[in-house]
Amino acid sequence: MIEERVTESVKGIAAAPGYAMGKAHLWQPQAEKAQRRTLPEEEIAAEVARLEEKTREALDELQCLKEETALKLGEAHAEIFETHMLLLEDDDFVGAAAEAVRSERLNAEAAVEDAAKVLVELFENMSDAYMRERASDIRDVAGRLQRLLRGESAGDIGGGGEAVVLFAHDLTPSDTARLDRSRIAGFVTAVGGRTSHSAIMARSLEIPAVVGMGAGAERVQPGDYVIVDGGEGTVHINPDAGLLELYRSKQLRYEERRSRLGVYIGRPTETADGHHVELAANIGSPQDAQAARDGGAEGIGLYRTEFLYMGRDTMPTEEEQFLAYKIVAEMFAGQPVVIRTLDIGGDKELPYLTLPKEANPFLGYRAIRLCLDRKDLFRTQLRAILRASAYGNVKIMYPMISNIEELRQANAVLAEARAELDAEGVKYAQDVEVGIMIEVPAAGMAADQLAREADFFSIGTNDLVQYMMAADRMNETIAHLSEPFNPGVLRLIRHVITAAHAKGRWVGMCGEMAGSVVAIPLLLGMGLDEFSMGSGSVATARALMHKLNRSELSRLADEALELDTAEEIRRHIINRVPAVAEWL
Amino acid sequence: MIEERVTESVKGIAAAPGYAMGKAHLWQPQAEKAQRRTLPEEEIAAEVARLEEKTREALDELQCLKEETALKLGEAHAEIFETHMLLLEDDDFVGAAAEAVRSERLNAEAAVEDAAKVLVELFENMSDAYMRERASDIRDVAGRLQRLLRGESAGDIGGGGEAVVLFAHDLTPSDTARLDRSRIAGFVTAVGGRTSHSAIMARSLEIPAVVGMGAGAERVQPGDYVIVDGGEGTVHINPDAGLLELYRSKQLRYEERRSRLGVYIGRPTETADGHHVELAANIGSPQDAQAARDGGAEGIGLYRTEFLYMGRDTMPTEEEQFLAYKIVAEMFAGQPVVIRTLDIGGDKELPYLTLPKEANPFLGYRAIRLCLDRKDLFRTQLRAILRASAYGNVKIMYPMISNIEELRQANAVLAEARAELDAEGVKYAQDVEVGIMIEVPAAGMAADQLAREADFFSIGTNDLVQYMMAADRMNETIAHLSEPFNPGVLRLIRHVITAAHAKGRWVGMCGEMAGSVVAIPLLLGMGLDEFSMGSGSVATARALMHKLNRSELSRLADEALELDTAEEIRRHIINRVPAVAEWL
Repeated sequence: MIEERVTESVKGIAAAPGYAMGKAHLWQPQAEKAQRRTLPEEEIAAEVARLEEKTREALDELQCLKEETALKLGEAHAEIFETHMLLLEDDDFVGAAAEAVRSERLNAEAAVEDAAKVLVELFENMSDAYMRERASDIRDVAGRLQRLLRGESAGDIGGGGEAVVLFAHDLTPSDTARLDRSRIAGFVTAVGGRTSHSAIMARSLEIPAVVGMGAGAERVQPGDYVIVDGGEGTVHINPDAGLLELYRSKQLRYEERRSRLGVYIGRPTETADGHHVELAANIGSPQDAQAARDGGAEGIGLYRTEFLYMGRDTMPTEEEQFLAYKIVAEMFAGQPVVIRTLDIGGDKELPYLTLPKEANPFLGYRAIRLCLDRKDLFRTQLRAILRASAYGNVKIMYPMISNIEELRQANAVLAEARAELDAEGVKYAQDVEVGIMIEVPAAGMAADQLAREADFFSIGTNDLVQYMMAADRMNETIAHLSEPFNPGVLRLIRHVITAAHAKGRWVGMCGEMAGSVVAIPLLLGMGLDEFSMGSGSVATARALMHKLNRSELSRLADEALELDTAEEIRRHIINRVPAVAEWL
Repeated sequence: MIEERVTESVKGIAAAPGYAMGKAHLWQPQAEKAQRRTLPEEEIAAEVARLEEKTREALDELQCLKEETALKLGEAHAEIFETHMLLLEDDDFVGAAAEAVRSERLNAEAAVEDAAKVLVELFENMSDAYMRERASDIRDVAGRLQRLLRGESAGDIGGGGEAVVLFAHDLTPSDTARLDRSRIAGFVTAVGGRTSHSAIMARSLEIPAVVGMGAGAERVQPGDYVIVDGGEGTVHINPDAGLLELYRSKQLRYEERRSRLGVYIGRPTETADGHHVELAANIGSPQDAQAARDGGAEGIGLYRTEFLYMGRDTMPTEEEQFLAYKIVAEMFAGQPVVIRTLDIGGDKELPYLTLPKEANPFLGYRAIRLCLDRKDLFRTQLRAILRASAYGNVKIMYPMISNIEELRQANAVLAEARAELDAEGVKYAQDVEVGIMIEVPAAGMAADQLAREADFFSIGTNDLVQYMMAADRMNETIAHLSEPFNPGVLRLIRHVITAAHAKGRWVGMCGEMAGSVVAIPLLLGMGLDEFSMGSGSVATARALMHKLNRSELSRLADEALELDTAEEIRRHIINRVPAVAEWL
């Protein structure tokens, strides 16, 4: 008798859509702890030289990897290795390690380990998921340097002949870039989120992937047959014949759909009944802007500016900021680029700003609250944005506005910045739109009043949901409450859109919800004007929108808002809008 | 030439209304650090005996103080000294100190200091203001015991002949109870909040008081002439003749008004046009219930049950809880007593519940979220409340409801509790109303749906404002955002009331806003049915309501909600409703 294992299905985070089937290949990269030695005085100079030589080797490797990745995945993805190269050239990393070799007489391996640890901890303690991911970059580049110091070459990832499903604790960008689509059908990691680099790369490589599986990843045994459902975030271990059959047909349908997607890149976004929709991307740096263009975004709905302020000892200068804003404005020549002013608070450490430790930093002194107190910092940023406005269609957006006084105060600082530029004869666009994020519930409820003085709104659903539900979205114990389809949340969103339209203002959304295929018909039905999302979601959103009749969706929204629970609302949309099911 | 100092006006927290004028008397009680000695083995037994003797003396003092206070202020206020006596008899305090004398060979003064410190830290780290105040009780009773151990008698508080205004860092309940109205015209403290015992007692003693002045309290010099405006929370130092004249006339008018207040205690609450309003009190223990009755409350709109769970090693039994609920139900025979189920979270330490440390505990795993996970704990509490319902007009209220699923799950546990009691033949009221707190914004927005399944709502403005404004109300840096008159907050409150009435449900409010004389006309205008507040505010609220025409207030509310800022709304109400200004 043949022993048959029962099918097990485990949930993780959907990282890259598509279906992968194959044998599980468990991969454990060598993350060895560095051996520690105290060097005799006379060896120190040689050890520093060795560290420098291996750093050069690492730079060479990264240069190759960068060029390969640019060819395989495009420039935008290759940028990450540029970042790694910059890290290797940063005084805070290899410089600090060399200093430790000298002053603490440490061997290079241990010194690199220590220097990386300091930086990793700095980034890991940040609440912004985007910034937290930077910790992985440091780990990645430090691992590369450690390996070279040990004199080892990069190991091979992947199995033997037929394509396998890779299981790993984590995959660094370096690992992911080396994945060979012909040998790796899909991958699953225990850690990581939707915005981790391995997830972003997987979407570009079109390798189906599930991340953040946690302990669930350990249930798989080498050689188990597995199905990865990257769109749902599910892994089926040892599926029975029926399930396998189901997924084979799903995969077929999916491939056929993908092949039709390319058509929508570069096309304008409109619904089946000819209604134009603004389809934009969220970015966190000029590098991301390229990926946004490649993905087909018609503009930037949210340009996070925190990257300029973090991981450094001094405030960014006006010039640095101006350049970072200008490059994106130019890249999207004529298309809107919404730049959000600094959104930072006490959960992040900035050496040049003393921020209070707070019992509840998400309910604390942050974003516009801080900027209105530090007018010098704020005015510098506004000057930089205004100057960039001469080079494209730039809009300014204030985060965390909770009452009209804050908007007025921010606009007063903006008026000062304009007056200064006028006096200095510096050019800037005269018609820059100034809008606000709607993420504080009170601002949402007072949208009718705020719309008199703000040119546009962008609904930040990630934070809005957090406050509306009184549930920290980073807190796993109450993850079930981070629910944008909650009827109360949806009522507020509808209220904001209706109130803004009554005053002739447009409303965008830049939270994750804007890129959800189930949410899109509902939001169109409520009248949302602009959708801003991760670059990887743009083509799908456009393809979906081309199938939707906007005129029918307003009734759908009314029906959905009469339902009691998030689950019922989701089900109703999926049942009523056949095009949605196609992209699930 | 006579040197004339300029008038300085400093803001604090309004603790007890009224006006006090006089010379400043700076009082610094001796809060000495205990001297530490290691005892020789042979002295230990005598030291334990000394500690026990002084504890008995402290108990005697407290007994006297309790009897005096009962005569002067009524039984309810005397209860605090009963609490102190219980503390002295508690194993965790004097017992722990005696143990330290024995095991660590410490002298009694140091052992008492250490034992108090452990308890003070435990309570101080709690986020609930009510529980944090318990830290002061421990400090107070420990101070008494220390003084007796040093062989000193209680010092004198107050100045010489004419009445003075007392300035102190803090006043303990023991200090406050000893204040002599004929010698102390008013007092000002650097620390403390509206719910600190000294504030509560000041309201009963009718001594005008300002607390929480912070560094502002240090601006006063001994002998400065000061005016205390206890209703506004302002202290004027060295007022000029005009200001003094103004306050003399204010004081006259105030005294005249107070003399008319007594009339309203015991009278039903109705508006000038004969509309009945439910006027209830918030309590945190059976002791508070007496003060609520004395203050003229017609019921309990919020019975916080946390006191049962805190400062102990084991879960409270069903029987303990039943007795604590029953006593209040009986005291308010027939009048409503709304018991709120456990509202506790990760910011509190409970030895018998392992609660996760959270980055943002106010957005965390707490209240109903925790109770639905710990159904045994929850069912025990619900059984106790149901049993108490046989003895009065008890209602059940769930805190922190954020979606209808939570309400349904809670009601399922309630159904289990009922079924158990039925099976056991235990009696309880069949018609207990089951309502929810509206404090999570999403629940407020979905009030129309929740009203189908909840018998009533009580708007918890303290938390609601915190979430609506995304501003931790304990965070002083952003205190200006804790604003119940924010137009967005008011729109939500109106939405909740309107939605509930459409389904035939009543709506109460149990946040601080309900007791604010400026808010009362606005809330009546919005149709609020029940107002629940601190016992000390009940008589004023009733007197004010007797002057208001409810039929005129709905237009006032409509007008107010068209205004842009909290400040404009406040001013509008004060200008339009003359009766409000009378009580400011």
